[in-house]
Amino acid sequence: MTSNQAILEAKQAVAKLAVDLSGRGWMPATSGNLSVRVDGTTDFCITPSGVDKGALQATDVLLLDLDGTVLEETRYRPSAETIVHQKLYASEECGSVLHVHTVYNNMVSQLYFNQGHVEFADHELLKALGHWEPDAKITLPIVENHADLQLLGQAVGEAAVAGVPGVLVRNHGIYAFGRKPFDAKRHLEAFEFLFEYHVRMLQLAQVPLHR
Amino acid sequence: MTSNQAILEAKQAVAKLAVDLSGRGWMPATSGNLSVRVDGTTDFCITPSGVDKGALQATDVLLLDLDGTVLEETRYRPSAETIVHQKLYASEECGSVLHVHTVYNNMVSQLYFNQGHVEFADHELLKALGHWEPDAKITLPIVENHADLQLLGQAVGEAAVAGVPGVLVRNHGIYAFGRKPFDAKRHLEAFEFLFEYHVRMLQLAQVPLHR
Amino acid sequence: MTSNQAILEAKQAVAKLAVDLSGRGWMPATSGNLSVRVDGTTDFCITPSGVDKGALQATDVLLLDLDGTVLEETRYRPSAETIVHQKLYASEECGSVLHVHTVYNNMVSQLYFNQGHVEFADHELLKALGHWEPDAKITLPIVENHADLQLLGQAVGEAAVAGVPGVLVRNHGIYAFGRKPFDAKRHLEAFEFLFEYHVRMLQLAQVPLHR
Amino acid sequence: MTSNQAILEAKQAVAKLAVDLSGRGWMPATSGNLSVRVDGTTDFCITPSGVDKGALQATDVLLLDLDGTVLEETRYRPSAETIVHQKLYASEECGSVLHVHTVYNNMVSQLYFNQGHVEFADHELLKALGHWEPDAKITLPIVENHADLQLLGQAVGEAAVAGVPGVLVRNHGIYAFGRKPFDAKRHLEAFEFLFEYHVRMLQLAQVPLHR
Repeated sequence: MTSNQAILEAKQAVAKLAVDLSGRGWMPATSGNLSVRVDGTTDFCITPSGVDKGALQATDVLLLDLDGTVLEETRYRPSAETIVHQKLYASEECGSVLHVHTVYNNMVSQLYFNQGHVEFADHELLKALGHWEPDAKITLPIVENHADLQLLGQAVGEAAVAGVPGVLVRNHGIYAFGRKPFDAKRHLEAFEFLFEYHVRMLQLAQVPLHR
Repeated sequence: MTSNQAILEAKQAVAKLAVDLSGRGWMPATSGNLSVRVDGTTDFCITPSGVDKGALQATDVLLLDLDGTVLEETRYRPSAETIVHQKLYASEECGSVLHVHTVYNNMVSQLYFNQGHVEFADHELLKALGHWEPDAKITLPIVENHADLQLLGQAVGEAAVAGVPGVLVRNHGIYAFGRKPFDAKRHLEAFEFLFEYHVRMLQLAQVPLHR
Repeated sequence: MTSNQAILEAKQAVAKLAVDLSGRGWMPATSGNLSVRVDGTTDFCITPSGVDKGALQATDVLLLDLDGTVLEETRYRPSAETIVHQKLYASEECGSVLHVHTVYNNMVSQLYFNQGHVEFADHELLKALGHWEPDAKITLPIVENHADLQLLGQAVGEAAVAGVPGVLVRNHGIYAFGRKPFDAKRHLEAFEFLFEYHVRMLQLAQVPLHR
Repeated sequence: MTSNQAILEAKQAVAKLAVDLSGRGWMPATSGNLSVRVDGTTDFCITPSGVDKGALQATDVLLLDLDGTVLEETRYRPSAETIVHQKLYASEECGSVLHVHTVYNNMVSQLYFNQGHVEFADHELLKALGHWEPDAKITLPIVENHADLQLLGQAVGEAAVAGVPGVLVRNHGIYAFGRKPFDAKRHLEAFEFLFEYHVRMLQLAQVPLHR
């Protein structure tokens, strides 16, 4: 019974996030997938594959176990990228995974792919990522966009490091995560802000006026 | 009876798309036109000409046959560009055509007009365009914006190639299409994402920092 | 009675435009003013001064005659820029005037101020400005932002030319107009599209890749 | 009784601003804080810490005195940055403080940090900041983002100058203020417009075409 309530809450959280993030244009062309762990279990709820997330209902959300097995009857398929979520939920500290495409996260993932990461420092919004130290600096990993999704899941899972709640995939958006959906969303918003800020600053890199 | 239901559904799909795409600013200044094939027929339903699409109702939508003849009494005129839709519906695989203006699709149509096409490769969103192969690359045709609309329709119809669900017209937006309205919209969103990504990357082409 | 109805319709049109254009961020910091002529008269209805237009009601809208005299009791003041509207309504062909600030219209007004105008050609959206000829080209005037509003009104009125439904004021937005509110809004949207397109193309002027 | 009504109105004003500014994406990742002075007192109402402001209710808003003491029972904590608000309310002319993060205000705060300020001149929107003189020019101060919040509060309070209703903090957004919430919001919108305008003009600094 507790479990049923926990499942319902996870599904509602997924649906709410789907409507919110779709409304910002962060899930274009049915891309992206969002999941929330069922409280107190190793199961998680995830958006269905190939569906427009703009009007997603809790009843559309799928329940899976940590091996990716669908636990309830449904007319939907889970995303092929569910494997990435599974790998991230292997950490007990992960309670929600948000994968979205924005122009800026794709740009950063490509611009800095060769060095395997991008660094952010000297910015107030690092606090939103959990870094309150005055000289905070984070290194966000960027992995190749493997066509083999098992490989992709493994690469993302291995790249994830303590204290940095996200992994970029080259020209394939970001996986942001957190203990609770609220945290994952705050992390995602902070990353997206830093991506846009960074790209727009790069555009001014050759303007002599600025310092 | 089945037919009446099919007509109604096509009109409702057109109206829903009109409100959605207008809300994004993709149909500025009453530009653009949207159509959906009536299921199981060669007829199609299309937005009226010269109307603000932001509050379009299904009852405002026109029913036409493949020759462009209006099949029901109406106070509206079909778009002068209806001929382009007709040419695209000549292919049985086409069930919906979305023509919109965005700043980015106009920019790309002008920037690459001289070479007659623009290429997109190495990006996850190519899957949303139906290309799941690991080394996917698509060539999107760009045609001249002929003042003669018969000529324009012919040019778009001839430029359309299998496997690439869109044609750019120079400084005249995109025609994106698909089997169903859902597919056409997914294709359109994927193209628009790629256009913006591409233009923003071009802006960084001379910044030495990035690689 | 007819007149009362015409006044009400004009006020409703102003309020609807105010909510719409505010929602796009085109009337920041209570800037901008919008007016609609009362059908069949020389009077017009205009937004009040210093008010947030995001929730404007028809009852907030002021009724003025062509000399700028307020014709009904009201707790509001008409905009100091009402004089500009008066000058434009001197032409019988003008039935609505929309003055808004966007980043792009301000940029264009400054970038091309020294030459006194900016030209747009070779673009489908010129049709939305009434130019259907295949080689359409329009010259949009730009005037100085005179502190003396009588002078500003006179400058805008004199700069307005037949066939070009707008005037830019340097770092002071655009005045767009048309026979009906519907036309003025279509003209405004077309101009804003062309401004953004133009500025973004300028940003690529030094990128070697494009042609 | 009057006081209770004044407190309620201040809380409602804070909640309304929170929903409005969150909806624009100006409070990403739970960042930012907004406050309104209780009319006729030295107390003020402020947004709670670490909360998503998108759906804030008046009942979520905290009541504090000028020393930062919370005056009513609540399950929330006031923002750690409340001290900055306190310093600004030390001036009797300050009745509302809005602190938000946008990409553009962060960019300007960093680009011009070394010179300690950024200047804006020759723009109509300076009127919205209270400067109606024909040759208006304002100097907006930029202070370091001190990790020590007492230091930050002091720096912002000291940087604030008569006639310029805002202070930028390096990579930490803007504090905009005014006599009433309406004024503070108008000031904020004017600043944000000028920031975006300025950054986009910088992007064209090397384009030979424009003058």
